[in-house]
Amino acid sequence: MASTAGQVIKCKAAVAWEAGKPLVIEEVEVAPPQAMEVRVKILFTSLCHTDVYFWEAKGQTPVFPRILGHEAAGIVESVGEGVTDVQPGDHVLPVFTGECKECDHCKSEESNMCSLLRIDPDRGVMIGDGKSRFSINGKPIYHFLGTSTFSEYTVVHVGCLAKINPLAPLETVCVLSCGISTGFGATVNVAKPKKGSSVAVFGLGAVGLAAAEGARVSGASRIIGVDLNSDRFEQAKKFGVTEFVNPKDHDRPVQEVIAEMTGGGVDRSVECTGNINAMISAFECVHDGWGVAVLVGVPHKDDVFKTSPVNFLCERTLKGTFYGNYKPRSDIPGVVEKYMNKEMELEKFITHEVPFSEINKAFDLMFRGEGLRCLIRMEN
Amino acid sequence: MASTAGQVIKCKAAVAWEAGKPLVIEEVEVAPPQAMEVRVKILFTSLCHTDVYFWEAKGQTPVFPRILGHEAAGIVESVGEGVTDVQPGDHVLPVFTGECKECDHCKSEESNMCSLLRIDPDRGVMIGDGKSRFSINGKPIYHFLGTSTFSEYTVVHVGCLAKINPLAPLETVCVLSCGISTGFGATVNVAKPKKGSSVAVFGLGAVGLAAAEGARVSGASRIIGVDLNSDRFEQAKKFGVTEFVNPKDHDRPVQEVIAEMTGGGVDRSVECTGNINAMISAFECVHDGWGVAVLVGVPHKDDVFKTSPVNFLCERTLKGTFYGNYKPRSDIPGVVEKYMNKEMELEKFITHEVPFSEINKAFDLMFRGEGLRCLIRMEN
Repeated sequence: MASTAGQVIKCKAAVAWEAGKPLVIEEVEVAPPQAMEVRVKILFTSLCHTDVYFWEAKGQTPVFPRILGHEAAGIVESVGEGVTDVQPGDHVLPVFTGECKECDHCKSEESNMCSLLRIDPDRGVMIGDGKSRFSINGKPIYHFLGTSTFSEYTVVHVGCLAKINPLAPLETVCVLSCGISTGFGATVNVAKPKKGSSVAVFGLGAVGLAAAEGARVSGASRIIGVDLNSDRFEQAKKFGVTEFVNPKDHDRPVQEVIAEMTGGGVDRSVECTGNINAMISAFECVHDGWGVAVLVGVPHKDDVFKTSPVNFLCERTLKGTFYGNYKPRSDIPGVVEKYMNKEMELEKFITHEVPFSEINKAFDLMFRGEGLRCLIRMEN
Repeated sequence: MASTAGQVIKCKAAVAWEAGKPLVIEEVEVAPPQAMEVRVKILFTSLCHTDVYFWEAKGQTPVFPRILGHEAAGIVESVGEGVTDVQPGDHVLPVFTGECKECDHCKSEESNMCSLLRIDPDRGVMIGDGKSRFSINGKPIYHFLGTSTFSEYTVVHVGCLAKINPLAPLETVCVLSCGISTGFGATVNVAKPKKGSSVAVFGLGAVGLAAAEGARVSGASRIIGVDLNSDRFEQAKKFGVTEFVNPKDHDRPVQEVIAEMTGGGVDRSVECTGNINAMISAFECVHDGWGVAVLVGVPHKDDVFKTSPVNFLCERTLKGTFYGNYKPRSDIPGVVEKYMNKEMELEKFITHEVPFSEINKAFDLMFRGEGLRCLIRMEN
């Protein structure tokens, strides 16, 4: 048991005081974990678009001041009452959605959308008592996605923690905490391409390249990357992408271009941009008879998906997925093992690294569209 | 070998001379089958909405004079060159779509949309030589869906014939030739409800009730019928329907009513009306996390399916199916066996019967919405 157990911990956290303003490293107080909660020492975190989206808070109810961050890896410092699944010293990945193991979704083999701990970006407090565990001079600082990993210590519901192999390098597997599992799982758990099949991936950012990695690992023979930035093809080759289409290079819908390239359409497609037109193209570019399209990217609130129903009647399937259909506690430890067994590669996703004190540089990199994941190292 | 083999056969056929006008029983000449074709003596046929749709020919290229009919059962009279799968005397069901066994679709386990013999309502001739096998005084009469079963004899591509158990009663299994397989297969092959699950069926005509029968046979514990005609509930109970919703009885979308009835949505839904709003409701009424909706009904040409993409991202699946995903030659003989083994019931679908000479009465029954299938007996 750590000597800090049961005590308030003072540590550094990057606080978003208001929407769109640079984060400020502050000393915060982190209260001890309450029932079913776990306090985690974060060692590595990384920046994901979702952090930026809620930091910008455009068209959203602002929840500030707030500690962002949800893609991370750390070590359990102490546990609250009723926690039996993890103990101090365990290596864990905090996850933005949870698994209570008791609701209909957790009991279903098909769903990972836990009723109790499903993602809720508007909630800035712990579900147990509706309060924050972070404060500065007694003033609460809000949580984010139940994880708030831009802090040296954070408090997380036990249902949002994946306990992983302690031999796994935390600075690498931390990316499985969100984006990479999302894309990889969309392909291997939902699209399920067969060996030798063709797969189109829309959007060649980290999530899309993880989807491509899933297709590569599945033995797809053609992986067609689709992106508005042609410079991304070169990097994408490392993730198995064999062909590239930039919709801007064509004066007809990209689904027609892909259908022509593939004799009627790809076997599978995975949409990782969230752009509504890309979603429609991703669906309409799959082959009739057997094609399956999977939506991953999060659309704008008022977007409407439109297509001719005949596209469905010709035996195309459209599915959506959330966190690659992985259940955080049950499945993510196995994904870490896949990495440990060299069945998937992770290092290539981590293109940059900054110390925690320079976390705002990670935001700059993302705005410039540079790299895939920027690792933020908490300890210097 | 029948003595008629290789000869032109003169027989009775119900000819649609023009769109929307009563059929006329005429003496037609039926030429011998050419390469890969089979001449079939039709014993029983029944009327399906698709016959009526192309007979009305609204907004379509009219193909007249034509011999309609595609749901039937008969016996092989003679075969053309190269036909080895069936021989004279075999009992067969003609099917409006085919299985060449050589194209990508036929080779795929997932598709039944044969590239060569896929349904083509605009084609009024045989695919081999682009000619009709029917004539009256030397003037060609067009085929319909490659089947034209409203004739005592017809010529069909061998790829559009299911060779079935000769012990099966043709007057009953003829309904497997189209509608009943379509609905039943949509549930058992595509929606695949688990034992104890809930299934909504939109449209309680013959196809919808076959979908319900598929849910019943699969062990669904709740089968919710949705129809604008509340009188249909009573009959639907025979097909396993346990609850009924008439959208007209509610002042909110039927998907909300169903979600409330089922604690968030049904596990599976099957849409058998072709109405675009019913399609949207059928999709939106399935449970997040695991719900699967299957479209069966054929929409109007310009209909657009619209929904929020978030409905997909919450892990709902939308699929479409064609002929219940059955491959006519490979799978339909097995469906006949299911009936023979009492694993599914067929008699309850046949609510009326007329002799061939009174075929127009079958149209009248359909217009009045009476009954499910009207059997047309070719021999008096």
